[in-house]
Amino acid sequence: MKLDGILPYARILLEKAVGPGDIAVDATAGNGFDTLFLAKLCGSEGHVYAFDIQNEAIAATSNRLESENLLDRCTLFNTGHQDMKACIPETSFGKVTGAVFNLGYLPGGDKSIVTGAETTISAIVQLLEIMALGGIIVLVIYHGHPEGEVEKEQLLNFVSKLPQEQAHVLQYSFINQINHPPLIIAIEKR
Amino acid sequence: MKLDGILPYARILLEKAVGPGDIAVDATAGNGFDTLFLAKLCGSEGHVYAFDIQNEAIAATSNRLESENLLDRCTLFNTGHQDMKACIPETSFGKVTGAVFNLGYLPGGDKSIVTGAETTISAIVQLLEIMALGGIIVLVIYHGHPEGEVEKEQLLNFVSKLPQEQAHVLQYSFINQINHPPLIIAIEKR
Repeated sequence: MKLDGILPYARILLEKAVGPGDIAVDATAGNGFDTLFLAKLCGSEGHVYAFDIQNEAIAATSNRLESENLLDRCTLFNTGHQDMKACIPETSFGKVTGAVFNLGYLPGGDKSIVTGAETTISAIVQLLEIMALGGIIVLVIYHGHPEGEVEKEQLLNFVSKLPQEQAHVLQYSFINQINHPPLIIAIEKR
Repeated sequence: MKLDGILPYARILLEKAVGPGDIAVDATAGNGFDTLFLAKLCGSEGHVYAFDIQNEAIAATSNRLESENLLDRCTLFNTGHQDMKACIPETSFGKVTGAVFNLGYLPGGDKSIVTGAETTISAIVQLLEIMALGGIIVLVIYHGHPEGEVEKEQLLNFVSKLPQEQAHVLQYSFINQINHPPLIIAIEKR
């Protein structure tokens, strides 16, 4: 068997968390692959809220959703995920069952624009307020770039101190590879 | 969804690794639960080699297997797993697809008798020689006791330095819980 494929594991978690009629959040829309994935999971009765600070990411995500005719079940916000709670309508509070962050830079984009621990932590705190019990936040942390290593340590420090009454935090990572495979953190709201 | 249940995850890995006709190893027979689990996975054409330094563990495992009429597909060695390569017949070399270690003390037994990193590392090195490519070693590391914390650090240090051409090493652990849930390490032979 193959242990490989840390990206599929992130998707396995989301698949288990998000079902038809659910609300999901893509905190880093990027090229829209996860937004599309979530849109399929939540079905025609569900909804996806996606965030990205870069215009080109929002455009790419919009195009990808439109090409599969799924744009109507998604709302794209051209702003950072730290504005999440202000952007998501209150009618969706308590119904968010899955959220994903791909942390690092936009693949194929400007590598000087990277995510940072501060906004991610702010968004996680907001998500833990507005998610359903049992909802899952998946962090896929790319840390091959210099800022990524710092971000990883700050995030690990934060999530490892979340009270266990509030969340269960799982770390999933390959630990002997020299090419810095992404680390996955899954946070289950309790 | 529930992220809980780190023990089931160890079993999911073994289920994927061990199929009918395969050879499996229970490096710490203990009360025999994993030996029995492996015996069912490897089927009537496969075989399980189980090790334990404690008589009472071997007796408990033997009874458990006998009660399910599966003792004939298992060989129990009342010796430490560091003797693995000398005990397992050479005809089984290259056919071992799964191995499991439950590290700590025997549940319900003498808590002063604990596993140590040195013998575990020796057994891992031997397993990487005699396993099939793609074979999986699962370490379930209980580290609530004082020696357990030391053992965990020594094992993490060892496995994180395994050359990636030789093995892929995955760490799976809950990181915010105060009751020291076991940590899982999965090693895939490459």
